Formats: sequence, structure tokens, C-alpha cells
Amino acid sequence: MSEKPAKTALTPATHTTPPAKFSHGVRKGNILQVAGQVGFGPAVEGQAPTPVGPGLREQTLQTLANVDAILKEGGASWEDAMMIRVYLTDTAHFAEFNEIYNEYFTFLQQAPAARTTVYVGLPAGLLVEIDALAVLG
Amino acid sequence: MSEKPAKTALTPATHTTPPAKFSHGVRKGNILQVAGQVGFGPAVEGQAPTPVGPGLREQTLQTLANVDAILKEGGASWEDAMMIRVYLTDTAHFAEFNEIYNEYFTFLQQAPAARTTVYVGLPAGLLVEIDALAVLG
Amino acid sequence: MSEKPAKTALTPATHTTPPAKFSHGVRKGNILQVAGQVGFGPAVEGQAPTPVGPGLREQTLQTLANVDAILKEGGASWEDAMMIRVYLTDTAHFAEFNEIYNEYFTFLQQAPAARTTVYVGLPAGLLVEIDALAVLG
Repeated sequence: MSEKPAKTALTPATHTTPPAKFSHGVRKGNILQVAGQVGFGPAVEGQAPTPVGPGLREQTLQTLANVDAILKEGGASWEDAMMIRVYLTDTAHFAEFNEIYNEYFTFLQQAPAARTTVYVGLPAGLLVEIDALAVLG
Repeated sequence: MSEKPAKTALTPATHTTPPAKFSHGVRKGNILQVAGQVGFGPAVEGQAPTPVGPGLREQTLQTLANVDAILKEGGASWEDAMMIRVYLTDTAHFAEFNEIYNEYFTFLQQAPAARTTVYVGLPAGLLVEIDALAVLG
Repeated sequence: MSEKPAKTALTPATHTTPPAKFSHGVRKGNILQVAGQVGFGPAVEGQAPTPVGPGLREQTLQTLANVDAILKEGGASWEDAMMIRVYLTDTAHFAEFNEIYNEYFTFLQQAPAARTTVYVGLPAGLLVEIDALAVLG
């Protein structure tokens, strides 16, 4: 504990450059914060990022994969996630979202993260955005 | 500090099972995160959770009680809360919400938590959702 | 690490009294949380707080200055920021907001904070609200 921990940007190779001066994720000491992720497919050089599908399922799975990549880049996993913030655009999506969420997280062995789900506006074409706070063990 | 802290799910007896694979709260080391709580009354076996009242006052007080139960389950209290996130559905509720909030928190002896209040969509019948981040002393 | 860290309220002299029992910011140990800030100009005694301008640029720069004042009050800086939450009211503001954000943060030497941007309702006249979580080195 005598040396100051550095703040490290977490930038998976699959991710496009953020559209502004922020990091996809940062880690400092045992705290890891993942920025809001959406359903963009893997970065293609010279192309603007686009969501993987118009549907909630495809976008949710891709969004979760994008969060996962950042956790891994920082030496963490979903088991370390303390809080997952979910932003949907339509309350009618809640039940389907939960089905997808539960299927995705069947592998969890530790207590699942806490979660808050609220309904907001997102840029056109996006149905879901997710960020996460992790505390490494 | 030599042993890795475990992540523990915080599940007060009064709470219904979450509608998806998330925890009402989690604690790991000195960090405690409470999931988004709403004004659901105490769990009744075999019944779907319902808000305690149609009004902002009843729902807010129940929501705060639900957050409180999770903090306590994790060995914490409101005095440890660093951040309280408040989601309302109508900007016209801000003044009344603050009145209720101030009455509720008269007991605080330490600095009150920081707070962010924004206006979002919530499932039908819900007027308020609150989550909290606490750091234990 | 033998003494329990105290929770300290961070109240810059420029800030008006919060409209409810919350702190503009709190620090406990190495964790600093800034409450949701908006584009209110410096406090004038006896006057209700008002946003500095009707436009996104003025409000954003003032909001960032207000967050900055709280970070400094807690002995931190933007270099310590892990997460910046941005609440806008209109998806049409995203591009202009990012321009202003990038100009503002040109001085950063460490990895920029992670960020989540969502579109919510805010009280009349407000176009942007920002909060931040920092971990001190």
C-alpha cells in the first residue's frame, strides 16, 4: 500500500475509439469502472460504430459482451461486479430484458451484482445501455 | 488485509425475490452497493410485489425503508451512505420529495450523502426509485 | 489504516445550500463522490440559484466548474475521477456536448474517466447535470 496506484485506461481491441475524451473503462487500485456500453459490434477501421441488430436480444447480448471485454481488460470478471446500471428505453422491454439477463448470467458462482434499471432516452437505434462498477478481490 | 474479501448478497427477509439474477445489495470489503429500490411493501409469499400506495409520500418512505433494510443487512447505516441516486418520474414532485427526504433524514449526525436526482420512466404505478453506495468506516 | 476514516461534507464557498438534506460532495477515506451538479452560477446570498445561460455551452462549462470545485474541496482533481455521469435532456445535444467536453479536458494527463451519458428529464431551464466518482491516489 506504500505506492500510489495508477489509474489505467481499459481499451479492449474490439472497441471503437470513444466519441469523446473518456475511457471505456478505468481501473485504479481495486476499483474498476466500466463506462456506458451499447450494442455496437466489434470495431471496423474507417467505419462508424453501429448496433448489431435492431432487436433487444442482439443488442443486450452485445452490450454485455462489451462490458465483459472491459472487465477482462482490467483483470476482473462479472464475479467482481458490484453494481450494474441498466438503461432501457421502453418499460415494455423489462420482462424480455430480464430473460436475456438471466440466461446470460447462469454461470455466476458468487452473489450477482446489485442492479438499477431505469427508462431513459438513448440515441436513435439504441435500445439498451449498461455500465458497471467492480471491486476486485 | 491479507485475505481476499468475499462478495456477499444482502437479502433482507422483508424483500421479495428480485425479478432477475441480481442482488438487492452486495457488500465486498468496505464497499456496499444497494440496488434500485422502489415502494414495494414487505414480501407476501405467493403474491407479486405491489407498491404501498399511489402517492409519492408513501412510496418514498417505503423505498427509503427498503434501502435502509439492505444497508442494515450489510452492517451499515445511512451514516455510511456516500451517494444516493433518486429517480423520479415527474419534475413537479421535486419539492414534495425533498420535504419527505428532509423529514426522513433528521436523525443524521454525519455529513449527509451526496445525491443526484433525475426524471426517468419507471414501470406503471411507480413514482420513485432509489439506490445507494455506502463506504463502511 | 487503524483509525476509521471520517465522512466529510465538501461544500465549496461558491455553492448555494443544497435544496435538501444532501451534500454537494462527500469524501471518506480515498473515495470521493460529487453530487449531481447543474449550471448554477456562484451563490448570491438571498437569491435562488439560477443557471448561467440558456445555452448548452455556458451550462456545461459552469456545471464542470461546479464539479471541479467540489473535487478540489476534497483534495482531488479531475485526474482522480473514475466515472462521470452525464445527464442531457436532448439526444440532439450529444455532438455539441462532446465538443465542449473535449475542449474542457485537454489538460488531462492521466486516463480520462469512464462516462455514461443518458437522456432524462430535468427541471425547467436545465439542459445538463453531471456527477462524478473519484478515487484518490
